[in-house]
Amino acid sequence: MKKVRIALMGLGNVGKGVWMILNSNKKEIMKRSGYEVEVAKILVRDKNKPRDVEVPGEIITTNFNDILEDDSIKIVVEVMGGLEPAREYMLKCMDRKKHIVTANKMLLATGGDELFEKADSMGVMFNYEASVAGGIPIINGIDESLTANKIEELYGIVNGTTNYILTKMQLDGLNFDIALKQAQDKGYAEADPTSDIEGFDAQYKLAILSSLAFGTKINVNNVYREGITKIKSVDMKYAKKFNLVIKLLAIAKESDGELELKVHPTMIPKEHPLANVYDSFNAIFIKGNAVGDLMFYGRGAGSLPTGSAVVSDIIAILRSNVDIENDNPVVKNNLWHRKIKNIEESQSKFYIRATVLDQPGVLAEITTVLGRHNVSLRSVIQRGSKNSECEVMIVLVTHKTMEADINAAIKEITNLKCVDKIENIIRIEDFK
Amino acid sequence: MKKVRIALMGLGNVGKGVWMILNSNKKEIMKRSGYEVEVAKILVRDKNKPRDVEVPGEIITTNFNDILEDDSIKIVVEVMGGLEPAREYMLKCMDRKKHIVTANKMLLATGGDELFEKADSMGVMFNYEASVAGGIPIINGIDESLTANKIEELYGIVNGTTNYILTKMQLDGLNFDIALKQAQDKGYAEADPTSDIEGFDAQYKLAILSSLAFGTKINVNNVYREGITKIKSVDMKYAKKFNLVIKLLAIAKESDGELELKVHPTMIPKEHPLANVYDSFNAIFIKGNAVGDLMFYGRGAGSLPTGSAVVSDIIAILRSNVDIENDNPVVKNNLWHRKIKNIEESQSKFYIRATVLDQPGVLAEITTVLGRHNVSLRSVIQRGSKNSECEVMIVLVTHKTMEADINAAIKEITNLKCVDKIENIIRIEDFK
Repeated sequence: MKKVRIALMGLGNVGKGVWMILNSNKKEIMKRSGYEVEVAKILVRDKNKPRDVEVPGEIITTNFNDILEDDSIKIVVEVMGGLEPAREYMLKCMDRKKHIVTANKMLLATGGDELFEKADSMGVMFNYEASVAGGIPIINGIDESLTANKIEELYGIVNGTTNYILTKMQLDGLNFDIALKQAQDKGYAEADPTSDIEGFDAQYKLAILSSLAFGTKINVNNVYREGITKIKSVDMKYAKKFNLVIKLLAIAKESDGELELKVHPTMIPKEHPLANVYDSFNAIFIKGNAVGDLMFYGRGAGSLPTGSAVVSDIIAILRSNVDIENDNPVVKNNLWHRKIKNIEESQSKFYIRATVLDQPGVLAEITTVLGRHNVSLRSVIQRGSKNSECEVMIVLVTHKTMEADINAAIKEITNLKCVDKIENIIRIEDFK
Repeated sequence: MKKVRIALMGLGNVGKGVWMILNSNKKEIMKRSGYEVEVAKILVRDKNKPRDVEVPGEIITTNFNDILEDDSIKIVVEVMGGLEPAREYMLKCMDRKKHIVTANKMLLATGGDELFEKADSMGVMFNYEASVAGGIPIINGIDESLTANKIEELYGIVNGTTNYILTKMQLDGLNFDIALKQAQDKGYAEADPTSDIEGFDAQYKLAILSSLAFGTKINVNNVYREGITKIKSVDMKYAKKFNLVIKLLAIAKESDGELELKVHPTMIPKEHPLANVYDSFNAIFIKGNAVGDLMFYGRGAGSLPTGSAVVSDIIAILRSNVDIENDNPVVKNNLWHRKIKNIEESQSKFYIRATVLDQPGVLAEITTVLGRHNVSLRSVIQRGSKNSECEVMIVLVTHKTMEADINAAIKEITNLKCVDKIENIIRIEDFK
């Protein structure tokens, strides 16, 4: 049996998962890769930090050079996270002809180009399955299995924390704050939950997925982003009335070479496969022009699921060219030029919830404004509960409308005397 | 741009899909594979048969030797189906160092070993993503993406026809015959639907999937098989009462090196992701010891979805070794020895529906027999509708029980004077 020496940079949640899988599934990995994998070094910040995995002390190091300068180490696994020094370390390792596996979504979404180019120029492999949706093999799915397709649309539930919160709000009737607290107690949400609940995490992942799916460079700042903090229990209830459920979706659509890229809370039909993705599970739904509708569902985070993706990336390197010097068999995914649409050019149906004065003619005033901006209505619920003596809630659902039009209309409606407040606006996606 | 010449054997439903994708997605395929793919020959039985695709007459041939003897043809796509001459043609092509892509589940499930061995010995690639679940990349998923895992359980809805029929029975209340007729009118079921409704198609697919998932040789005859023809509307109604739905599942479980392999109608909890797979869609649900729960969902049949899988297999060959002679970089998946359990050793919960005499003491008699065979009951519904003056229907749901025990008990119960008929027995899977 051939042997290969690898190194881990990082021994946090994901690093521990990788270590455990390499040990517990050693036999399977040997059969499938043809190699016995030896972890030669693990880079950590603090040698003495107590850890709940047993790792031989002699392979733990705090010195990156122990990995960089050891030419017997062929593959380096970056699971330390963050931008620096992860970026610098990976670039240096590639310069030394080491293949790289990473789980670092933030770095890939913001500075991935440099890493891909370095890997290409050095002829090393650079695998990142674990960077999006944990154990779900969506990177490999797009990059290897859907190659026959023009991908037309991609919809992802790619953040487990927000999906857990929305599930609790939908099924258990919790309000946002309590659902968030539960997510924190369960360890799904961090003490500072901003990255999850404001959609940053999903934004990174959509940038990575859509770069790959549409073969283009995506600047993460071109991905429209809106979090779930504005979602109220009452919106959940209205959604249910319309046979819809609310999910935080990462959406990418291609038409005529132009891309729409957006992350926002979305009402979707309750029969859609994505609507039945509960708790902290992730799923990515894809429409390809050959394959039709396809969905991948699974654990989007966690030590072992994410470790599963990392270790499969290691095996992929072992199966191809770990021993081949100066040669990169991976075909470069030549880039297309794609214009990325401004959110204003995007089209959706909209759910609008407002508090208005309880007097005749209010709906007529609002619909007149909407009509002037080419917004037509599909349904109206006016018998909302009274907020106070003289105010009521109304809910409007529009037909498909340009964002620019809805924004202009809303601005005008907000200024109507009969309207107290636009409480919430949520996009509706019917996948048609 | 490099060019590669390929040949198709067969221009039926799948062959047409392959041809259309190669043409409509030509640019994408060039970017992703680095090759311009030229279809040099298409083997058909009848040159003059009218076809609804436009193919240049000069590439159509009825002579297999036009493909075999043309050394400029590097890849041969077998989409003719059936055992012979497909088997003979593929073996001969491999002998001439041609890489093979096939969609032939029957041949793979019954005589796959010979083909894999020939491919290994000749150093050619042999890809078969399209043989199971059409466009869903489940072969690549298991073979490339889940390599870090010990796969513990696999549950598949792998036959679209039966899933369509069961969906119509469940949601529209149709009986089996009418649902089957609808499936035939829609083109989902063949004039002779035996292979689908009796579970043969699913049996082939499970043999292929589990060979790969568990790294072993599976004789298709060792896969237990039961079709859906016995499912009645009344069973659908009782399932609903228990919050269950009925699906035809292909099930594989591994424990202590032993495999359970079975295809049968199964009652599953209505919240389970597989329960929400409707119409002719397929899905494969996998439990891996690292990745946890994972599901792939999509179109299991059809010209373009299956063509998508075939073309991605072609691209995989182009990306690796189409130009490399005498060398096979694919690591052989060394085989494990696995004992395949007899269905009698398998454990399930059971739903049992029976017609019994409307007299006191019947349930006591039945439960006494069950108890003697170690079968304990979870629930009983005795207020079933009367079939006649003196008979009623009862439904029993057991706790987890050995098949051998339930079979022995049922044999005895059938002989009880108070029991007219055991109407149906359906296994229940709660994924625990």
